[in-house]
Amino acid sequence: MMLEETIKTIQRLNPEYRALARAKLDRLTKPIGSLGRLEELATHYAAISGEICPTLPKTMVFTLAADHGIAADGVSAYPSSVTAQMVHNFLSGGAAINVLARQVGSEVRIVDIGVASDFDHSPDLLMRKVGWGTKNFVNGPAMSRDEALQSVETGIELVHDAYGEGVRMVATGEMGIGNTTSSAAITAVMTRQPVSQVTGKGTGIDDAALARKVSLIERALHLNEPLPHDSLDVLAKVGGFEIGGLVGVILGGAACHMPVVLDGFISGAAALLAVGMVPACREYLIASHASGEPGHRVALDELGLHPLLDLELRLGEGTGACLAIGLIQSSLRLLTEMATFDEAGVDDAGHSQQEDA
Amino acid sequence: MMLEETIKTIQRLNPEYRALARAKLDRLTKPIGSLGRLEELATHYAAISGEICPTLPKTMVFTLAADHGIAADGVSAYPSSVTAQMVHNFLSGGAAINVLARQVGSEVRIVDIGVASDFDHSPDLLMRKVGWGTKNFVNGPAMSRDEALQSVETGIELVHDAYGEGVRMVATGEMGIGNTTSSAAITAVMTRQPVSQVTGKGTGIDDAALARKVSLIERALHLNEPLPHDSLDVLAKVGGFEIGGLVGVILGGAACHMPVVLDGFISGAAALLAVGMVPACREYLIASHASGEPGHRVALDELGLHPLLDLELRLGEGTGACLAIGLIQSSLRLLTEMATFDEAGVDDAGHSQQEDA
Repeated sequence: MMLEETIKTIQRLNPEYRALARAKLDRLTKPIGSLGRLEELATHYAAISGEICPTLPKTMVFTLAADHGIAADGVSAYPSSVTAQMVHNFLSGGAAINVLARQVGSEVRIVDIGVASDFDHSPDLLMRKVGWGTKNFVNGPAMSRDEALQSVETGIELVHDAYGEGVRMVATGEMGIGNTTSSAAITAVMTRQPVSQVTGKGTGIDDAALARKVSLIERALHLNEPLPHDSLDVLAKVGGFEIGGLVGVILGGAACHMPVVLDGFISGAAALLAVGMVPACREYLIASHASGEPGHRVALDELGLHPLLDLELRLGEGTGACLAIGLIQSSLRLLTEMATFDEAGVDDAGHSQQEDA
Repeated sequence: MMLEETIKTIQRLNPEYRALARAKLDRLTKPIGSLGRLEELATHYAAISGEICPTLPKTMVFTLAADHGIAADGVSAYPSSVTAQMVHNFLSGGAAINVLARQVGSEVRIVDIGVASDFDHSPDLLMRKVGWGTKNFVNGPAMSRDEALQSVETGIELVHDAYGEGVRMVATGEMGIGNTTSSAAITAVMTRQPVSQVTGKGTGIDDAALARKVSLIERALHLNEPLPHDSLDVLAKVGGFEIGGLVGVILGGAACHMPVVLDGFISGAAALLAVGMVPACREYLIASHASGEPGHRVALDELGLHPLLDLELRLGEGTGACLAIGLIQSSLRLLTEMATFDEAGVDDAGHSQQEDA
């Protein structure tokens, strides 16, 4: 089975590459460690990829779209129909993710993994529908266990195809009206935190709608009883097709030794599920930013990830990930393009930490 | 006199442009405000430039180099000779600032405003020497008041020249062994904070050297008695030529209605002096990042600026500013390239903040 094989393939990082990259950074014309988290990024990238002098990796953002039954209960400022409308917007290049991906030279792969309506054929849209939106999880499971598995394996396959096209870094993105509700439910289950602590205003609902959102999630968890130690069970009961797809993207990325750049809250929920399946995949994750959604911090803390950016973004699509891709590119350029002390003829007093010269 | 004229030219921002940009952002295909601080950046840029649909501005990083007499007292992990060596490194394109400026398409202007040695002619090095390094300010003023004025006016002139070349956004950068000591002294004076609270390890000195650095600064402030209400006096007594130059870059940028992207601690000290001369120039400043130097936070708090990035950088040169330039470019691309709800045919429920559809 593809999921099981993928899980077996995922290895811990090799610390040797991190040390080699560290040694290289320490010869560059700058005080030791003075590039801070950019240096961590460069050594992390080396450890993941096994490359000390990497070229900028071909990068792909997976923007997976799906609908959610729960959206019928008024948990979003927008109707479900906006999911499909935004897919059209992605295809014509007018959405935020298109703009930011263009800036960093990243490709965006738009995937219908579960939108509630059908699309005409488009060369830029991958049709991988697992279903026409999930069921409303206040009445029972969002999807079957088979559908949950299928959504994860769809994500794995997407990454394998991309790897075959030369992609060496992936990023997670999504579109799905209602998916902060699903993500809050997943985060509450996987981190054992109260629903009220991990639920936010998503696209911009008011306080009354937020209170209803919290109580709907509490009801859904009470009814469905998702099992925290069984990520597929959680995904099936309160997840979404795009969230399952992102779990697959994360696992597939780790299996292919690629950095996986996480976007915001929904990606964080997917990461909780992926790490629940195979803890080692955590080492391949780069948290791009801290979202405005309160549950995102909780998820990142649980994952032990420290976000690169804190710009109060709460858009999704993969937008925060694209900004972080720019920083990762910076770190790799510094690692590979800077002169060493020897090359530049600069006195290197920094290594000895001596106080004067 | 050029400084006085420049000060008179600097105006408060026109809030009308901010509101127009805000209105445009709210028509784009995203929930209201969901791009967080990128939206603030876009409206801030519009207010500074008076443009609602800006093209990406031609950008210049001013990396001003100068030496400091105080460096003879063991306040840095590197000897003064490294300042000149690093200028050569800038000229051959091997320093971090070269790498990061290339990434965002920004030009770097390397200026010898006070290095203690002389350079052969190079087409890429501007010779604007105010002196051959400052005097050691533990024994008296670092420079004369005339030299302080000359360094500021040099910075103003640099910006005017750049403006003439089509530059529409400037960033501050510097190189000068010993300049975190000078910046800590300036920050202590301008923010009225104890020297120990604003002094850090710079390029990487040990605890004993840090203690000596603090006590040297305390001694210098006691001896020189710089006057906080007189920025030129502070600059002359405990400043540096490159810091004076950056004061000029900031004032000149504000006078030309350009955003001024501040790098780290040294730029923050220069900003304190500039704002001391003309408070309105604060509105033209964008704080790129929070440096690892403790005094930088103190300076930014005093300036009322909230940094975009917190990546534990402590290199200077303009490196943090370059990373922020990438984010500013993101914000302008989003403002100008995204589709509106109308253009994309997406239902816009967000404006009414309604809870369901």
